[in-house]
Order: sequence, then C-alpha cells, then structure tokens
Amino acid sequence: MTQANRYDVQTLTAFVEQLFEKSGADAEVARVVTRVLLEGELLGHRTHGLNLVSRYIGGMQSGQVKARAQMLEQVSDSGISSLFDGHYVLGPYCVSRALDSAAKGASEQGIGIAVVRRASHIGCLAAYLKPFTDRGLVAMVYSSDPSVGIVSAHGGIDPIYTPNPIAAGIPTQGEPILLDVSMSTVTLAMVGQCRDAGTALPHPVVMSNEGRVSNDPNDFFSTPSGSILPLGGEAFGHKGFALAILVEALTSGLAGHGRKDGPDQWGASATALVIDPRFFGGLEAFTDESSFLGKLILASRPIDPQRPVRLPGQAGLKLRAQALAQGLSLTPKLREDLNQTARQLQLPELP
Amino acid sequence: MTQANRYDVQTLTAFVEQLFEKSGADAEVARVVTRVLLEGELLGHRTHGLNLVSRYIGGMQSGQVKARAQMLEQVSDSGISSLFDGHYVLGPYCVSRALDSAAKGASEQGIGIAVVRRASHIGCLAAYLKPFTDRGLVAMVYSSDPSVGIVSAHGGIDPIYTPNPIAAGIPTQGEPILLDVSMSTVTLAMVGQCRDAGTALPHPVVMSNEGRVSNDPNDFFSTPSGSILPLGGEAFGHKGFALAILVEALTSGLAGHGRKDGPDQWGASATALVIDPRFFGGLEAFTDESSFLGKLILASRPIDPQRPVRLPGQAGLKLRAQALAQGLSLTPKLREDLNQTARQLQLPELP
Repeated sequence: MTQANRYDVQTLTAFVEQLFEKSGADAEVARVVTRVLLEGELLGHRTHGLNLVSRYIGGMQSGQVKARAQMLEQVSDSGISSLFDGHYVLGPYCVSRALDSAAKGASEQGIGIAVVRRASHIGCLAAYLKPFTDRGLVAMVYSSDPSVGIVSAHGGIDPIYTPNPIAAGIPTQGEPILLDVSMSTVTLAMVGQCRDAGTALPHPVVMSNEGRVSNDPNDFFSTPSGSILPLGGEAFGHKGFALAILVEALTSGLAGHGRKDGPDQWGASATALVIDPRFFGGLEAFTDESSFLGKLILASRPIDPQRPVRLPGQAGLKLRAQALAQGLSLTPKLREDLNQTARQLQLPELP
Repeated sequence: MTQANRYDVQTLTAFVEQLFEKSGADAEVARVVTRVLLEGELLGHRTHGLNLVSRYIGGMQSGQVKARAQMLEQVSDSGISSLFDGHYVLGPYCVSRALDSAAKGASEQGIGIAVVRRASHIGCLAAYLKPFTDRGLVAMVYSSDPSVGIVSAHGGIDPIYTPNPIAAGIPTQGEPILLDVSMSTVTLAMVGQCRDAGTALPHPVVMSNEGRVSNDPNDFFSTPSGSILPLGGEAFGHKGFALAILVEALTSGLAGHGRKDGPDQWGASATALVIDPRFFGGLEAFTDESSFLGKLILASRPIDPQRPVRLPGQAGLKLRAQALAQGLSLTPKLREDLNQTARQLQLPELP
C-alpha cells in the first residue's frame, strides 16, 4: 500500500531503521529512534517527525551525535530515581530509556523518575507517551537545553533560557489525553517559520534587543538577538516565567549539568516522571475521572460554532488513526530528503 | 514588641493556636495550621493568610470542617507513594502531612508523592515550601477542587474547572525560589476584588455566559455565570488549558475523587511531590545551577528601569524577613476580625 506518497508504517519503519543502522547506530538504538520519530510524524508534528532523520544522521556523520547504546551511562539508580548521562547519544533513545526506567519505578512503588543530561536532540515530546498511557500510566517529560537561551525573564529584555516544554500523557477509558506545551508564548520554530515566510507573528510575542514588544520575527533574529516572551505574554508572563524556572530545576538542575557549565554543544536535559494510578485511588477511578472531565470539556459550548472544543492531543490522535488506516502521506520534499540520505548511504530509495 | 498593630511571630503564633484549640482542634492540628496561615501572611499573601483563621473556625463551628488529627486517613502507602483521605480536616494539616510523607520517600529513594482527597481549604500553597527547601529538597504542591468549576476550556464558553495552581520551592545557595501560579489568567479572588471595588479587570480575562471576552468582572458574576480564561488568554489559552487538565489528573484523578462524584462541599484535592537532588546530580550541583540561573535572571536588563527583574518568591521573602525583624503588621480590619473570634471564644484579645 504505497500509492502516491502514501506509505504504510511497516515500510517506513524498515526504511528509516536501515538508514540509522547503515549510518552506524546499534540495531536497538535505530529501532527506538525510528519509532519515536515516526510517532511524531503520525501525530502530525511534522517539524519534529521524519524530517529529523537526515539531521540526526548528519550529526552522527559529523561525530557530534552518538548512536551506541552502551554510551548511555546510568550514573545513579535508587530503584525509583535515576540519573543518566547521554554523552550526546541520539535523544529519542535516551528519553525512551529514561521513561522505561521511570515506569519500572512506578510499577513497583507508584512513581518513578529518571533524569538525563547531555542527550542529543529529543524530538517531539508527545511522541513518547502513548505506550505508557496504553499501560494505564501517567507519563510526563520535561526538557530544557542549557546551551541555548532565547526566552526572556518576565519584565526583562535579555534572552535567558529555552522554551522548556512539559508533556504529559493521561490515560482515559478511550484515547489518552496527550499534552505537549512550551513555557514560552511560541517556539523558536514558529518565529523562524514566520521569518522565512516573510510574515508577521500572529501575536506580539517577541521582544527586540531594546525591550520593545513586537510581532516582527526580525526583531528576534537581530544582533544582539531579541527574545521570546514567556507563556502569559506581557500581562501574565510571570506565570510562564515561574513555570520555566521549575522546568529548568527539574531538568538541568537535577541533572547537575546546566547553564553554569556553559556547554557549547546542543544537548537536552530531560526528565521522565511516571505515575501508576493503581497505587492511589486506582486505575478505574482515575480513568472514570479523566473520562468524565473529558466529556465535560467536549460538551462546552464553543465560542466559534465552527470550532468545537477539543482535548489536548485529540487532533493528533485523529491524524494518527487516519495514517495507520490509509498510510502515512509524506510531502514530496520530505520524501526527497529521505531518499537523498538513502542514496548517500547506498540504500534503496522509497518508491 | 507589639507596637501599633505590629506583632512578633511568637505572640501571634500563641494567639492563633489558642483560637484553634479552644474551637476544638487537636494541639498538633492547631500548631500546623497556625504555622501555615502565619507563613502565608508573612509572605504577603494576605487573602490567604491570617484572614482565613475566622473562616476556618467558622467552618469548624458549623461542623463542615474537621480538626481531629486522627480523622485524616492514610488510605494507601507504598513507602514512596501514598493516598490520604482528609475527610474535610483543616487543609493545611492535610497538606503538611502529605508533604512530610512525600519528603520521607524522597529522603529514602529520591522522590516521594502523596495525594490527598477531601482536604478542607488549604490556604496559600507557597506557605508550605520553605521548610523543605531549607533541607535541600525540591517541593511541589498541585491543587484542584472538584466541587467548583469557574475556568473555561480553551475555545469554550462554559466554566469547567478550578484555577488549578502549581507551587514549587527550589533550593539555591541563598534564599529559595518559591513559585505559586494558577493555570488560569487570574484567580476568582482577583475577579471578586475588582467587582467589589467597582473597577474593571486589568486585562480581558473573563468570558460572558454568551462567549464574549471582557474585562468587566460582572460578566463573570452573572446568571448563569461567566468563566475565567485559562492561562495564555485568547491567544495561547490552549497551553494553560492543557496544564490545568494535567493538574486535575495529578490531583482529583489520582485521588480517585473528583468531578465525576459531584461533591457538593468545598474540598481540595492536593498532591505533594518532593524530590531530593542528592539522588541525581547532587545537592551542590543543583544549587550551583539554580543560583547561577537566578543570577543570570536578576542581571537581565529590565524593560522598565524602575522595575528590576525579580525571581519568583523574592518579594514575598523580603516581606517575610522584614516582618521577622520588625514584627508583622496587621491591618486594623484583620486585628478586629481576629479579636472578634477571640471574644466569641472567651479568649484574651490581641493588644
């Protein structure tokens, strides 16, 4: 079933795994990284899906990004809490291992946590969650990157920290609720897209290097650079700012590796936190509650009758189901990008 | 040192403890509740400080609020994870016990969590944190109240859930960073204050019952009632909305007691999560990082030169230090309110 740029997941999985393996990744690493990137693509996060394949492989070829499972070092382990040093191994492998470790703790004592320092780029946070919600677990991922500063403190001009996302998967009686939000108004990707398209940002969310709030992406891409406002914007940015500091503490802070170390290589600090509702009020009571809340929300009268209220993750899960049923559609640009990598590695191309 | 409405903490502590004990609280409960309310007052959270004393005692007198330590039931305990049923015992006692339980888990295995259902009103979340940061622990409190719905879903009109705050205490080499933010644009208290003062809200953060965004507090206090917009407002409310759902899941969801049960009595679901950095990169590396980040933030060029950038909790901790040095100043209204309760209980008044 590979009609006109539509591919079934098995075909794409085998193709992408081969690219990673031929580039030098261990089979296990290739398998896990492929699964996470493909899941991001299935959920419709196209900037954080398969278009990362070539970028990751480029990093491996330049030597910055590692792909050996044994390079991911477990620095400490209490059974419930652990710290990994990724040594810049492919991020989706590091984060998946951290989530597995946290889930083991959760299954044993109700909660588990694993912190990773120096993971390479970790992709789409929402892409990690469903295997855990499918097991009735609440899974969370937090992330920051101590080598990058682009978001300002509330009331301040200078760029300090990263958008610091929080993602969470919440089981219900049906599809899970999957949320993945940054503690900034917008992401760097959004500012870059508007700059490239020559359009204004939809809201005044960047600040010029002189402290003027603006919707012009060029006010961010200046020298010295501007900054992105924290979630909440001019009026309520103290909230997003405070939450971003919490994410820094839970990631780079616990990792013991952060801005103080002045890292000059892109590398995520990521924290996985998994909770098993069976140790509290029980899984059935939990999903009764999450499903009840979900129904209450979906029954909200919409402000715009054309746009019914949705739950976080609902749109992505619908895209995912369609792609699984009908095949995943790749843009011609992405297909060509993947095939170029395949040619370079002397592997067969996608049809 | 009780000059003109200034009182030392010892005097106030003894006075408030006596009010609670004479009203029927166990000595231990009176001690803990007094400490939390006084700490809220010291940090400048005057709507969630000592002005709650009379309200709490009123609740005890009407029988809705309980004050016996043994009524707080530990439903489950894995050593690391536990669930308490508060049976409407005074909330500051329930949350303090939950935090102690979570901190014990953190000291043993790096992280601990305790969920409480049916706590009575829990006051100011920031007031719980400093004893834990003083021990080098990261402490978090999440809260929701399944009997109240006032915040709308993003894109929806109807009020669904509570402002669902997240509070966290982060140790540094100096004063801790203390954050306490709701996942709504504003709190109900703010909307009520503007209504009472006859002023507009500073931003358009309420929605009329017909779906019109407004800065008129009366659009909230209508029949049927309006709603408060989630953190992020019209443009970025999907983020505050998603985070609010996460807080519901971590509190009422894990508690196994939430909106599905249709509780008709005010009662908090609260979750305490404590992490010990010693089990990860170490306490010194953690506070090196949090202090470094704090300095970076404080060195930000301010947008308004009259308003230097501050860290979350900094203003409150300054007020606290002043009050500890010079005595805590009570408004005449609060002093009279406390003295009225004292007279009613046939106890000596504050001078």
